Amino acid sequence: MAHTVVTSHKKKVVIGNDQPFCIIGERINPTGRKKLAAEMADGDFSTVERDVAAQVQAGAHMLDVNAGIPLADEPAILAQTIKLVQELTDVPLSIDSSIVEALERGLEVYQGKPLVNSVTGEDERLEQVLPLIKKYNAAVVAISNDETGISEDPNVRFEVAKKIVQRAQDHGIPKEDIVVDPLVMPIGALGQAGRQVFHILNRLRDELDVNSTCGASNVSFGLPNRHGLNAAFLAMASSNGMTSAIMNPLHEPEMQGILAADVLMGTDQDCLRWIKRYREPSQAEASGGEGREDRRERRRRRAS
Amino acid sequence: MAHTVVTSHKKKVVIGNDQPFCIIGERINPTGRKKLAAEMADGDFSTVERDVAAQVQAGAHMLDVNAGIPLADEPAILAQTIKLVQELTDVPLSIDSSIVEALERGLEVYQGKPLVNSVTGEDERLEQVLPLIKKYNAAVVAISNDETGISEDPNVRFEVAKKIVQRAQDHGIPKEDIVVDPLVMPIGALGQAGRQVFHILNRLRDELDVNSTCGASNVSFGLPNRHGLNAAFLAMASSNGMTSAIMNPLHEPEMQGILAADVLMGTDQDCLRWIKRYREPSQAEASGGEGREDRRERRRRRAS
Repeated sequence: MAHTVVTSHKKKVVIGNDQPFCIIGERINPTGRKKLAAEMADGDFSTVERDVAAQVQAGAHMLDVNAGIPLADEPAILAQTIKLVQELTDVPLSIDSSIVEALERGLEVYQGKPLVNSVTGEDERLEQVLPLIKKYNAAVVAISNDETGISEDPNVRFEVAKKIVQRAQDHGIPKEDIVVDPLVMPIGALGQAGRQVFHILNRLRDELDVNSTCGASNVSFGLPNRHGLNAAFLAMASSNGMTSAIMNPLHEPEMQGILAADVLMGTDQDCLRWIKRYREPSQAEASGGEGREDRRERRRRRAS
Repeated sequence: MAHTVVTSHKKKVVIGNDQPFCIIGERINPTGRKKLAAEMADGDFSTVERDVAAQVQAGAHMLDVNAGIPLADEPAILAQTIKLVQELTDVPLSIDSSIVEALERGLEVYQGKPLVNSVTGEDERLEQVLPLIKKYNAAVVAISNDETGISEDPNVRFEVAKKIVQRAQDHGIPKEDIVVDPLVMPIGALGQAGRQVFHILNRLRDELDVNSTCGASNVSFGLPNRHGLNAAFLAMASSNGMTSAIMNPLHEPEMQGILAADVLMGTDQDCLRWIKRYREPSQAEASGGEGREDRRERRRRRAS
């Protein structure tokens, strides 16, 4: 069973099928957040600071850090943000950029063994990114598309993942350091998107023996009650082998889906995290009235 | 792919991997409901009538009917209840008793092709129940325990299921008419209970090619926020091959988990049921603030 180990200067996180599902906080990302983009370009990291604290408090095991701001010096801002975030928290980071130079600047300043987000199956990209992964002893997210785009055939996407794993091994990177993103399509556009991903996830676990991740909210794009869909998707994906997700840990439905999946996959030892989070009647009631229900059941048992 | 077809006098329900998850309402059952037991023994079916209406309204595809009342004439009351319920609704029924004579009396009065709940793998039991299933052309829930009890080894439970399917075929009952209950243990007592069941479910679908069911709430026994655990369990089980559950359709978290699983398994055609249930902003807000969130996202998109 593959164990992907990532670290900060102080803390180790293990991603694996026998571990709690790894929650990678996605909030430190200026894409689609104009105010944050303007602040970061300006050297104002007050929102970043709040996002670090809130995500770690909410239960993120790792934080993704992206500084993709149009017309800004992304490599410099990414490096600066990573240094700052590492001063604020000891959870390991995912260094997120589509610009190779930015990834390298991030890797230079990072303390520990980070996850790099990401490399795709295009040959040129592989030859740019994999040497960095090897040089800095990092782990990397491998996205299962290549020059031909994103295949609708899950077996083709599996083959792309396999190619990346093999190419990484050619560069001296063990498969434990590859975390495959099988690419989740919006279910509203492609009704088979869920079954496809569950199929790939099983093959990634059973045949390729690698860890996996995804952007968790894409699946519900365009549909109402996205949190409800995302929560079910995360639990279903976990039971089919997915071991991490890049997501917003401030969303309670998604977090509950993951924590329940940890209980049901046997990775929440003695259900302690679940019991701690939901045992208070006041908390349980806030999350759906279970406290009341349980008391009613107790009364019924006493009565009978 | 196995299709289990059950009918009433007017309506057909198909259970199968390419069908929406089949919700079998569990409420018409006096076990642990002293008031209902006293009423039914007294010939008062007012609570039964309300339970029929409420469960069908909430989305049950089938209703389980049980009349297990200590010291009462269970065969007579079960037959009477089934006749009444069939006057009130056209959803197909599951005839539920541990007393063979009660099953037969229920089968005598039932109009259509019911599900019989249940037969276990004990030889004596098989030889009592299977001839009735054949005689009345019914489908049957096969519970995967036998003389040796309930094995903690999922592969042993699979073998018991296989034995029941083979014995049924000896009696001229096709495997399409067998719905296996792999037995779900409380996860609080047995941390591997979830993985075990998911493993059996995959084998039931892929190797034995039969439908499956379970009592959905057992898994969360003794833990807080049971609805949250049950909801995740149902979605996870669905993605591992489970095609029905005996459950309380009045519980919104569990129903949301199943409806989300239908979307993600591609059995909610064009997501129409999901959209219909959750598209109203007021409804969406009640189910977790998604309406607000979506509006905020729209404003953000307009602003950027």
